[in-house]
Amino acid sequence: MTIDVVNLTEKFSLVNELWDPKIIAQLNDYHFKIAKIQGEFIWHSHPETDEVFLVVEGSLIIHLREEDLYLQAGELCVIPRGVEHKPAAEQVCQILMVEPAGTINTGDAGGERTISNTAWI
Amino acid sequence: MTIDVVNLTEKFSLVNELWDPKIIAQLNDYHFKIAKIQGEFIWHSHPETDEVFLVVEGSLIIHLREEDLYLQAGELCVIPRGVEHKPAAEQVCQILMVEPAGTINTGDAGGERTISNTAWI
Repeated sequence: MTIDVVNLTEKFSLVNELWDPKIIAQLNDYHFKIAKIQGEFIWHSHPETDEVFLVVEGSLIIHLREEDLYLQAGELCVIPRGVEHKPAAEQVCQILMVEPAGTINTGDAGGERTISNTAWI
Repeated sequence: MTIDVVNLTEKFSLVNELWDPKIIAQLNDYHFKIAKIQGEFIWHSHPETDEVFLVVEGSLIIHLREEDLYLQAGELCVIPRGVEHKPAAEQVCQILMVEPAGTINTGDAGGERTISNTAWI
């Protein structure tokens, strides 16, 4: 048995596209995913699951219907299931997400920015 | 509804004891825990769950029966369920762990270093 040590900086260096999450680890039936983001995503929610966002580098804004969350590197938040949110970043931001395997990036909203088969990196 | 932004540095500043994990976030039925560690823990495994270790600051050694894993800040690994491991650190190391709520720090080994009721911080 070999257990990999996953280096976040190395993994982020392999991500070329914005808003294109990649899986870097699996914990039971949960995935750890990384993404580089800049600009605005779309409003969506995940009716079936909470979602963790951890900022590894840069600044993340998570718009909610009634407030905005501002996260810097080394900060995380849990978006509860069913809560509408719209991630955004003014500059390129590197984030780590934790959620059940199979969770779709656009949640219940769907649309052209949906990535159905998230790849490992 | 208020969603907290959790700052890891701030949370670690509240941890006074070594090998005393504290919960900082909940994702569905999973807990995100932080701990400061130094020295050697005990051999144990978690027969029912995988466990993620992410190093936030310092250097972590995870002894396995057949190899040793060396993790620096910004690196993570997944210890599969049932795999015996013994975390260790030469200097004080700050780690983030992700595992199902109720997972006991000493797993199947028990003993005096067991912390049964992990507190939130």
